[in-house]
Amino acid sequence: MSRFRELIPIKNHLPTGQLNAITDVTGVQVGHTTIIRGDGALTVGEGPIRTGVTAILPHTGNIFREKVPAGVYTINGFGKATGFEQIRHLGVIETPICLTNTLNVGKVWDALVTYSIRENPDIAIHTGTVNPVVGECNDNFLSDGQGRHIDASHVLSAIETALATIVEEGCVGAGTGTTCYGFKGGIGTASRVVVDGAYMVGVLMQTNFGRTSELQMLGVPIGQYFADNPPHKPDGSVMIIIATDAPLTSRQLERMAKRAAFGLGRTGTVCHNGSGDFVIAFSTKNRRLHDETDIVSDVQLINEEAPLTNGTVIDALFRGVVECVEECVYNALTTATTTIGRDGNTYYALPHDKLVELMRYYRRLD
Amino acid sequence: MSRFRELIPIKNHLPTGQLNAITDVTGVQVGHTTIIRGDGALTVGEGPIRTGVTAILPHTGNIFREKVPAGVYTINGFGKATGFEQIRHLGVIETPICLTNTLNVGKVWDALVTYSIRENPDIAIHTGTVNPVVGECNDNFLSDGQGRHIDASHVLSAIETALATIVEEGCVGAGTGTTCYGFKGGIGTASRVVVDGAYMVGVLMQTNFGRTSELQMLGVPIGQYFADNPPHKPDGSVMIIIATDAPLTSRQLERMAKRAAFGLGRTGTVCHNGSGDFVIAFSTKNRRLHDETDIVSDVQLINEEAPLTNGTVIDALFRGVVECVEECVYNALTTATTTIGRDGNTYYALPHDKLVELMRYYRRLD
Amino acid sequence: MSRFRELIPIKNHLPTGQLNAITDVTGVQVGHTTIIRGDGALTVGEGPIRTGVTAILPHTGNIFREKVPAGVYTINGFGKATGFEQIRHLGVIETPICLTNTLNVGKVWDALVTYSIRENPDIAIHTGTVNPVVGECNDNFLSDGQGRHIDASHVLSAIETALATIVEEGCVGAGTGTTCYGFKGGIGTASRVVVDGAYMVGVLMQTNFGRTSELQMLGVPIGQYFADNPPHKPDGSVMIIIATDAPLTSRQLERMAKRAAFGLGRTGTVCHNGSGDFVIAFSTKNRRLHDETDIVSDVQLINEEAPLTNGTVIDALFRGVVECVEECVYNALTTATTTIGRDGNTYYALPHDKLVELMRYYRRLD
Amino acid sequence: MSRFRELIPIKNHLPTGQLNAITDVTGVQVGHTTIIRGDGALTVGEGPIRTGVTAILPHTGNIFREKVPAGVYTINGFGKATGFEQIRHLGVIETPICLTNTLNVGKVWDALVTYSIRENPDIAIHTGTVNPVVGECNDNFLSDGQGRHIDASHVLSAIETALATIVEEGCVGAGTGTTCYGFKGGIGTASRVVVDGAYMVGVLMQTNFGRTSELQMLGVPIGQYFADNPPHKPDGSVMIIIATDAPLTSRQLERMAKRAAFGLGRTGTVCHNGSGDFVIAFSTKNRRLHDETDIVSDVQLINEEAPLTNGTVIDALFRGVVECVEECVYNALTTATTTIGRDGNTYYALPHDKLVELMRYYRRLD
Repeated sequence: MSRFRELIPIKNHLPTGQLNAITDVTGVQVGHTTIIRGDGALTVGEGPIRTGVTAILPHTGNIFREKVPAGVYTINGFGKATGFEQIRHLGVIETPICLTNTLNVGKVWDALVTYSIRENPDIAIHTGTVNPVVGECNDNFLSDGQGRHIDASHVLSAIETALATIVEEGCVGAGTGTTCYGFKGGIGTASRVVVDGAYMVGVLMQTNFGRTSELQMLGVPIGQYFADNPPHKPDGSVMIIIATDAPLTSRQLERMAKRAAFGLGRTGTVCHNGSGDFVIAFSTKNRRLHDETDIVSDVQLINEEAPLTNGTVIDALFRGVVECVEECVYNALTTATTTIGRDGNTYYALPHDKLVELMRYYRRLD
Repeated sequence: MSRFRELIPIKNHLPTGQLNAITDVTGVQVGHTTIIRGDGALTVGEGPIRTGVTAILPHTGNIFREKVPAGVYTINGFGKATGFEQIRHLGVIETPICLTNTLNVGKVWDALVTYSIRENPDIAIHTGTVNPVVGECNDNFLSDGQGRHIDASHVLSAIETALATIVEEGCVGAGTGTTCYGFKGGIGTASRVVVDGAYMVGVLMQTNFGRTSELQMLGVPIGQYFADNPPHKPDGSVMIIIATDAPLTSRQLERMAKRAAFGLGRTGTVCHNGSGDFVIAFSTKNRRLHDETDIVSDVQLINEEAPLTNGTVIDALFRGVVECVEECVYNALTTATTTIGRDGNTYYALPHDKLVELMRYYRRLD
Repeated sequence: MSRFRELIPIKNHLPTGQLNAITDVTGVQVGHTTIIRGDGALTVGEGPIRTGVTAILPHTGNIFREKVPAGVYTINGFGKATGFEQIRHLGVIETPICLTNTLNVGKVWDALVTYSIRENPDIAIHTGTVNPVVGECNDNFLSDGQGRHIDASHVLSAIETALATIVEEGCVGAGTGTTCYGFKGGIGTASRVVVDGAYMVGVLMQTNFGRTSELQMLGVPIGQYFADNPPHKPDGSVMIIIATDAPLTSRQLERMAKRAAFGLGRTGTVCHNGSGDFVIAFSTKNRRLHDETDIVSDVQLINEEAPLTNGTVIDALFRGVVECVEECVYNALTTATTTIGRDGNTYYALPHDKLVELMRYYRRLD
Repeated sequence: MSRFRELIPIKNHLPTGQLNAITDVTGVQVGHTTIIRGDGALTVGEGPIRTGVTAILPHTGNIFREKVPAGVYTINGFGKATGFEQIRHLGVIETPICLTNTLNVGKVWDALVTYSIRENPDIAIHTGTVNPVVGECNDNFLSDGQGRHIDASHVLSAIETALATIVEEGCVGAGTGTTCYGFKGGIGTASRVVVDGAYMVGVLMQTNFGRTSELQMLGVPIGQYFADNPPHKPDGSVMIIIATDAPLTSRQLERMAKRAAFGLGRTGTVCHNGSGDFVIAFSTKNRRLHDETDIVSDVQLINEEAPLTNGTVIDALFRGVVECVEECVYNALTTATTTIGRDGNTYYALPHDKLVELMRYYRRLD
């Protein structure tokens, strides 16, 4: 239940934001609804339940009225994330981003419509539609997935309690029942200050991917010291949400999103067939007003190829993404705790003492 | 309430299947649930309702257990179709395809999970997940969209009543409340026999797109003889479902899907910003078994570039798609009837007498 | 040898620019090098030759130093256009766009390097590389394709003689040896004034696609009155270059590029397997300076969804593209003249008298 | 000048093929032309020259007549690779794949046309065109890039001398002048036996990417022990060629191609803005005959989701790709030797003694 840096120093990375969390990007808020109920044998529709919702709000205003520029990238498409087609073509996000477990996507989608209408009663009456953005991982090794226990109140609660402060990690919200490299995983977050302090990059991830034997942490082959658990776990997924206050176009945000694979790569995975690995990147700047009537607007945009002392401006953003993604995985692993779910199925926490011992053996600790 | 060919001959096209419908592709079934309730002023949550569900089943077996090869293509992404990311990467469809109105996508998605679990109780328990494929158009000019009046029973009914025979068109199912070039539109279907009778191409469309002034039918500028109605209608969408019994890979099916734009182009639209124009193409051959354990399988595949007397094999499939899409638009227009919805909002049927008169004037009729 | 409008009025379209040409977009210049040499039997390496180069310059400055925002779209990828990967990721064009015949792509690519180095001697010495943009159609039914008769001087000449005035059309430059729906085709151009006069959309096309029987002009089934010629012509291609002075991002330009298919669709093609159909769209505004050192810049961008009296701002741009593409096809057809090439192979001009007669019969002419 | 495994053991990887090279895939051949000429100050057009060509032949037959299934993926598009659009749509490769330096792409493209016509004199006469596949990295820190010193004879020589045996690595062919993480890099290759010996995966890379400080080898932070050299090197690129004898569709091959990013990620890069990172994957099975006349063919295809003891069939192929890409980087680094180029510019070889020392310190060696 420690963040990774409390156990092991990370060297040669960019500086983190104050919280080392996606909420270091001004205006971004995160809320969780965690549902833990019941123990023992699975009774479909009853439980046990180990699931939840995590909501990421791009800013503190009306998101439908002030849409944020966004880009998406699908690393491996074995997943049910929604809203991607519209983001690709229109280049904006207009709802909170909600993460949940797989079979609840429909219900969470519907709840985001409810939320959006509540905030914007003209939707589908005087104005058109709304594009809910939902991501998911499959937590049904621990939880009664078929039961679909998320309802609108859970979604609204995650949105309404979202805060721009410290983000809970590990077995919380959409990470309540998920794994990471066969250990208990869940939510992880991190941030980096880039371009000489000009911009912030923050990432939040819902981890549910990887095989134990593959796990590398700061290059140390941690996974090889553990047996796969469970031995025949179905493949998982990972949702990666990237936020920045750099003023970027959707094309530039999509380029950032593609770099997430390089952060994942550092942690050892080969990106399995059954893993739905999706990336969403948004900027809090240059919002698109739903009720815009001017034909043109003045905006600021970064010059992605302008030189810094070490690479270009966008290289700095890329590096921020890669480092954050890497650290999110570690944070998810070290903040999660052993969780027993339906039928006694268990994901074990990565043992911190063993981690520290291996890190010391492999010279990451003095 | 006539199909287009009952009014106007179509010359120089490929031969149609027996029904001139997507159900000419052996095994494909279509079912509709139509919901028409109430009149007068809109009361959100009450009505009036002019909406529905249309289900397309790729074959008569268990679709989850025998997935069909598929390709998708997004012409313009202002829409909420689901399942596309997974189809792109895995190349298969594993649920019925359900069409509905926009804000019900979440509920229909959830109903497809219910259906899939009912047929396959191991989903999310011993096996992984399921990828519901939902398409939508916005019918809220006529209907209480915010009310989201589709529930699981409507979806299950559309699936369970699906038949491999004549397909109802016009104001039915997901076409109950939709438009086409400002006239009342809805569901249209058509089919073509290709490659010297070897294969069938069938298309079903949910139309909701286009501006009146743009409408061309067999090249005749029909739309220019009518005022826009409604004058400031928000942009619509179109869902295009292509079926074939030719044994194709997902890449080849995606190539077919891209040709839908050429069929739409013949009818005059410029593909508006607010139109979510999505295409799904599947083959009923070379199904992928969910429980497959063999490492390799013997399959037949077409040689897309093998020469026919007029172009290649895949050119014949392309032509089938373009002609079907064109005719689906016409069928949707001539089978739909004037519909009055919420607040007295009305889409008028394309007047058949005027259509015939213009077709005669422009020499498509003797 | 008349432009289409000199023969047949086009009604219900947007207003054209002054020249009804891509050069109506301020700063855009077009140059042709036409190579016609020899008659009779093909001797590879000798001739006969019916080929050329067409160069489109996005502005009058140093294009490498002031790159233009661009988007690309491949309708059907059976072709050898170069530079697309870099445009997709970086969103800019940094050389003139050169069109030529297929097997000369390598030589024209190399000539664009020569040109770029001449104008920017630091390329590959103190700065990185350059991304030549070359498009092509296959003119070897008439010309000695294997001979690859284009050399650097032809490319440089097309660039150096490019003018911002009237654009020669038909059998000129890269259109010297190409076809269109089985008739002699070649270069066509058109323009439209959009957004109440605020912006210009211009298109230039190198046509080489379509089967005679498919040809529709203003909806009139012209092609059905002619036999296919040649009966077994290999499939062709089409290159579509879109220019605008509207300040657009690469995402918005890519959206415009996708609309080209709707213009082609109006002319009847089903987009054949063997046709390499590529679209390049660029804006002359918001150029990216190669030597930019500022981290951010102030730019103007259109609000694509801002309402006009009839649709959104970007709808107007879409309509401009569709109408221009349609008219480019007609202009290529009516300005081209019968051309006899190698081995006596002949593409015949579309007979104007027959065209006028059919247009009158089908009520497009009084 | 040792391969990595001669210096450092690689544990917990799949077994390699006999040669641990792309040529372990039966039929695949590799040839290099290396051009090293001159020393001292750069005289454009003269030298010094440190460049070359590497040719990969998918099989020993006529590649145009027997095209191989292929998929491509662009990790970052700042590069000039050709042929990708056609591979994406048609799903095959029909020429040798040639790698070279950036500004020679046009000349190598042209040479591949020359080669293809020599082997198939009907191209562009009785049959259509040919799609040359060329990849590139920028070697002009060492070499006279502007001089474009590759001519057709160099390309033909690389093709004609290609062998199915041991592959030369390091400063050879297209790797003669390239770098890797600021050290001298070049060509690297590796292979893995997958699916219980049923299939081979082989990879060949032309490395030219990465910053020194980022370099990780087997997780060890090697790069942090060295200063960047050169300090302001322009970004490079990487070409990754994947071969397999598993019978795969182009969709499956594209999925494999996407995994290359995970192999690169293990070596530390964040994938810089200026790096053109391209992946081409092909199968030697299920070749498509140019002169095919049958409408359908019987083929074998893998069932990508069939279970093995540890994941699915395609997971095994993915793991093969990731491990090969990782090892190719290491092989390129340890086989390359210090190279002095134009103006005395120098890339230094990674010192083997320091590498061994660090590997021992970080516990990869006893």
